[in-house]
Amino acid sequence: MKNIAIGIDIGGTNIELAWVKPDGSMIKTLSYKTADFPQVENFIEKVGNTILSVNKELSDFEISGIGIGAPNGNYFTGSIEFAPNLKWEGKIELAKLIEQKTNLKTQLTNDANAAAFAEKLFGGAKQMNNFLVVTLGTGLGSGIFVNGEILYGSTGFAGELGHTTAIESGRKCGCGKKGCLESYASATGIVKTAKEFLALSKIDTELSKKENFDAKDIFVAAQNNDKLALETIKYTGEILGKSLTDYVALFSPEAIFLTGGLAKAHSLLIPATENAMNKNMLKIFKETAKILPSSLLEQNAGLLGAAAMAISKE
Amino acid sequence: MKNIAIGIDIGGTNIELAWVKPDGSMIKTLSYKTADFPQVENFIEKVGNTILSVNKELSDFEISGIGIGAPNGNYFTGSIEFAPNLKWEGKIELAKLIEQKTNLKTQLTNDANAAAFAEKLFGGAKQMNNFLVVTLGTGLGSGIFVNGEILYGSTGFAGELGHTTAIESGRKCGCGKKGCLESYASATGIVKTAKEFLALSKIDTELSKKENFDAKDIFVAAQNNDKLALETIKYTGEILGKSLTDYVALFSPEAIFLTGGLAKAHSLLIPATENAMNKNMLKIFKETAKILPSSLLEQNAGLLGAAAMAISKE
Repeated sequence: MKNIAIGIDIGGTNIELAWVKPDGSMIKTLSYKTADFPQVENFIEKVGNTILSVNKELSDFEISGIGIGAPNGNYFTGSIEFAPNLKWEGKIELAKLIEQKTNLKTQLTNDANAAAFAEKLFGGAKQMNNFLVVTLGTGLGSGIFVNGEILYGSTGFAGELGHTTAIESGRKCGCGKKGCLESYASATGIVKTAKEFLALSKIDTELSKKENFDAKDIFVAAQNNDKLALETIKYTGEILGKSLTDYVALFSPEAIFLTGGLAKAHSLLIPATENAMNKNMLKIFKETAKILPSSLLEQNAGLLGAAAMAISKE
Repeated sequence: MKNIAIGIDIGGTNIELAWVKPDGSMIKTLSYKTADFPQVENFIEKVGNTILSVNKELSDFEISGIGIGAPNGNYFTGSIEFAPNLKWEGKIELAKLIEQKTNLKTQLTNDANAAAFAEKLFGGAKQMNNFLVVTLGTGLGSGIFVNGEILYGSTGFAGELGHTTAIESGRKCGCGKKGCLESYASATGIVKTAKEFLALSKIDTELSKKENFDAKDIFVAAQNNDKLALETIKYTGEILGKSLTDYVALFSPEAIFLTGGLAKAHSLLIPATENAMNKNMLKIFKETAKILPSSLLEQNAGLLGAAAMAISKE
C-alpha cells in the first residue's frame, strides 16, 4: 500500500493540513482560520473528525502518522508551550490530543524545525547532514541538523539563534533581553532599522511617503534603487552575516538556508550577508558554508516539514 | 580476552601515551618530550616501535585501537593541520602513519574533543547526551556532544567556541580577528586583563610586585583576597558567562564542563560565570544547563579521552 503522512501547520492566522506523499507532493490540502478555534477542544473535534473522514476517502493509502509544526512547539513533550501568537493558553498537549482522536502516531515540533525537516527531505539539503535553516519572518527561528539529525538539545528548545546577542546592549527585544539577532534580522527588525535610518537621514526616499510601511515595502523600494531601502537591507545583512560567522565556527554546516518572508529578498540580502561572513570568517572555515535561499521558498515549508517528520520516521 | 585501548596525547611540550582499560584505569603510561622529535618520522619510528613492544608485554589484553588527541587534529582526515605549537609543519597524516606502523586502527581528533570523550566515558557526562566541554588553557577549545555524538560538522572543525566574538571590536586575537572569546577567557587572556586593570587602577595589588606574572599568580593573589586579582577573575567570568548564555540557546546542553589550567580556579571563576549566565539567559533556558568543573580536572583528560575514542568505537 502506498505510504503517506499528514502534515499540520499551525500559525497565528491560518491552520493548514496536507496529505503528503514521500516525494513531497500533496494529494489533499485543507485550510482553516486559527481564530475559528478559540479553544483547543473545538480544534480537536472539528479537525480530528475531518482527518478521520479524509483518511476514509484515501483508503488506498496507508497513513504513516501525523506531524505538527507549531510556534513554541516542543518535540519532547508534544506540547505547544505558551505561544504568544495563539489564543490557546499555557501548555497544550496537542500531539497527545490529536493522537487520541485519530489513533495515528503524532509528533509535534516548532515551525522552524519543521522547515528544516522539509529542506532535508524535499529541498536543497537532501544530501546534507549538517546544515542550518534560518526562518526570517515576523521573528527569527532556526532548525539545525547535526550528524543527520535535528538538534533538540536537552530541553527540546535548542537552536534559538534569534535570541543570541547580535549587538551588545542593542535594541530591546520582545524576549526581554537586549540586542538579540531577531530584533534586527526579521521583518519587524528591518522595519525598525529603516525607521531609525529615516529619522537620522536626509536622503530622499519613497518610504517617507507612506504613513507606515512594512518589510515588503522596503524590498519594493530597494528594487527601485531607493538608497535608504538599499542601506537598510545592507545593514540587516551585515548583522545577520556577523552572527552567522559565529554559527559556522560552532556548527560547521555545509549550508545555511534562508527562508520566510524576509528571505524572499535574498537577491539583495544574501550578498550583504555573505560579504560580512567573508570579512569575519576564521580561516579554516572560509568558503566551507554556502548561504542559500531555501529551495522551498515558494511553498509552505512548515506544512511540508510537519509531514516530513512523520514520513522520515518510517 | 580483556579489551584495552591506547591513547596518545600530543602537546607542545610533552607527548603522553597510555594503555587504558574500559573503566578508565591506566595499566601503563609513557611520556616523551615533544622537542625530541623535530621530524614526524622520528616520532613514528620511536613511538611506533615502543607501542609494538609494549603490546607484546601486554599480550593478555586485546588492543581495540589507538586514539590520538592533538592540537588542530581533524577527525575526518586523521591529520594535524598547521598546528602553531608543533614543529611538524603543514598537514601531517598522523593517524595513517601510526596505523601503518602498528597495524592498529587509529583515530585522531583535537585535544578539546578528546577531553569531551573523556568526560562522556569516564567523567561527569556519563549519563548525558548533550553537553559542552570548554578547555581553558593557553587558548580556549571546546568539545560538544549533541544527541550522544561529538559534533564535527561538515569540515571536522566544528565547535570553535574560542573564536566566536565575545566583544565587538575587542582585543586582537592570534587568529587575526578581534574580540574572540579566547582572547579573554584563557590563561593568556586573563593575564592581559590583569595587566590592563593594573595600568588603569590605583589599587594596591601583589601582582604589581612581580616583573611578570601568569594566570596561576592571579589565582594565588585572588585566594589571598587581592582586590585586583578578584576583579580580573570576575570580569573573565562575566565575559565567559555572556558567551555561554548564547551557546545554551544554541545547544541547550545539560551541562557545560570547564577544564584546563584556568578551570582549576573554578571556585572563583564559576560563580562569576554563572551570575552572568543567570542575568542574560532566555527564560525557557533558565536553570536548564549546569556549569561544572570537569570531574577529570586532576587527570590528563586529553590522554584519557584519546583512549576513550578508541574504546567507544568498540
